[in-house]
Amino acid sequence: MPDTPLAIGVDFGGTSVKVGVVFRGNVIDHAPPIATQDFEGPDELIDAIVRVIEDLRSRHTRIAAIGVGMPGFVNFEKGIVYNLTNVRGWVEIPLKARLEEKTGLPAVVDNDANCMAYAEWKRGAGRGLNHLVCLTLGTGVGGGIIANGQMIRGARHGAGEIGQTSIDYQGRAGHYGNLGALEDYIGNNEITATASQAYHEAGIHKAADECTPAALASAANGGDPIALKLWDGIGEKLACAVMNCCWLLNPEAIILGGGVARAGEVLFAPFTRYLHAQLSGPFKDHLMILPARFGNEAGMIGAAALGLEAAGHTIEP
Amino acid sequence: MPDTPLAIGVDFGGTSVKVGVVFRGNVIDHAPPIATQDFEGPDELIDAIVRVIEDLRSRHTRIAAIGVGMPGFVNFEKGIVYNLTNVRGWVEIPLKARLEEKTGLPAVVDNDANCMAYAEWKRGAGRGLNHLVCLTLGTGVGGGIIANGQMIRGARHGAGEIGQTSIDYQGRAGHYGNLGALEDYIGNNEITATASQAYHEAGIHKAADECTPAALASAANGGDPIALKLWDGIGEKLACAVMNCCWLLNPEAIILGGGVARAGEVLFAPFTRYLHAQLSGPFKDHLMILPARFGNEAGMIGAAALGLEAAGHTIEP
Repeated sequence: MPDTPLAIGVDFGGTSVKVGVVFRGNVIDHAPPIATQDFEGPDELIDAIVRVIEDLRSRHTRIAAIGVGMPGFVNFEKGIVYNLTNVRGWVEIPLKARLEEKTGLPAVVDNDANCMAYAEWKRGAGRGLNHLVCLTLGTGVGGGIIANGQMIRGARHGAGEIGQTSIDYQGRAGHYGNLGALEDYIGNNEITATASQAYHEAGIHKAADECTPAALASAANGGDPIALKLWDGIGEKLACAVMNCCWLLNPEAIILGGGVARAGEVLFAPFTRYLHAQLSGPFKDHLMILPARFGNEAGMIGAAALGLEAAGHTIEP
Repeated sequence: MPDTPLAIGVDFGGTSVKVGVVFRGNVIDHAPPIATQDFEGPDELIDAIVRVIEDLRSRHTRIAAIGVGMPGFVNFEKGIVYNLTNVRGWVEIPLKARLEEKTGLPAVVDNDANCMAYAEWKRGAGRGLNHLVCLTLGTGVGGGIIANGQMIRGARHGAGEIGQTSIDYQGRAGHYGNLGALEDYIGNNEITATASQAYHEAGIHKAADECTPAALASAANGGDPIALKLWDGIGEKLACAVMNCCWLLNPEAIILGGGVARAGEVLFAPFTRYLHAQLSGPFKDHLMILPARFGNEAGMIGAAALGLEAAGHTIEP
């Protein structure tokens, strides 16, 4: 298919901005990452991203669109970044317009969790499905929802914030005053803090780097009862929030991605058990629980696909 | 508009089946209710419903469709009732096919909470909106979701079960093993039980009929501090489940109907306060919190509109 267009995918993170050339769900060329904090403000950083894009374009013809995933609140229709939690100065930035003006390519800007969900839906674990809930489990807990074969963005492009949903109406207050937010129980840092505490109570000293999700997954796979119990608790809390999505949306599949999901069976087994115990037949009998196909490249792949689709190209699986 | 078609709306309840002729969101003729439990099984009851429908048709020309709202799990596409919680014998009943065969009219069958949501969306408080969450608060707590200008039914027609979502991952087990289900905190019977207990603890004897939601609303409006506190607690729990819908779906409006919602300000005021305290700007700044327009007729009105739409008629507001 020599005429299938390529697209630029941009995954904008608090630490680095990753830019790549994407072809049918594969990142075929990676630019060197841009260090987000090296730049004074949005103007300088946008210029740096544009330079990287132009460099990639000098090596690839047929680039038809740009897609950008942002770690914060975005107006998808207008392509405006309203604010970013971890990057200074990104307030009301018309990123889509700036990129289009500087590159002459059509661009879209979306929330990073939506990009991940879009990648999994169009190119990954959820291909061909019409009703999906995707979660990305990392420092934050993000999500994206597909229903009736469409991305659900809601009235103000905010939909899919599974990490902010509550699993305890009397829980502690989260970032937005929301009591018992899932992210405040199973975000990376909270997992590490809970683990340190659990080992400490058992009289075992563990450094913080022995309590990361990756270290705890290794420990659980080695039979460590404290680590196994921690993953059971993470599965229990995650199952509550996902169960709520199931009762509300009755999806065909739940897709779990992000660093914490890489724990694999030590998370998926208790999670599935707690989830199944709390759903009736039509909600669980055909429900697929799937690991995400894409890892760190999900944001670039999804953003690129969104860019192509907005530019009028059909995204075939 | 002499050619606007009429439709039959059927609201099938555990106590009675209400059948009416609906014209543009108004029930213009009510048949006498049919006592659900007077019939041996589905066949006899379906025959009784058909007799009532034929009687209404003898008085109204231009009836173009039938819509039925059922208190249980339904396959909307096939029109099959899988089972009803409170009516014996209704297992795998092809109600749509039976009605069409016996009346010659096109028919649809949906969950009753979806019918209520459809009525409010097409004819009621949510007219013209594209992103809605509707709740009906009664003995059960039901719901319906509209997103991207479409009803969300999910993979197996189960979506919208807000009453089964959890507000406490360690709460007590509900009907389906789900821990902390909203319905088990703020369903009619649970409200009455909680109120009786609260008065008892305060040394006040109240009979059960003084602890109904309606009686508690009167008491709260009269300044009764125990009743006010009870409504505050109901608002708090309801806000948790609705906040979860907001983070997930970012709706334009929340519509509250059903008997418990008739309490009015004593419920809406604390509910709104708890909800606003737990949402960020894009989720709450333009969010409308609306009482349902329709009361007991919502089911008939929504079912009739669904019937007309499925038969190819446009539902204009």
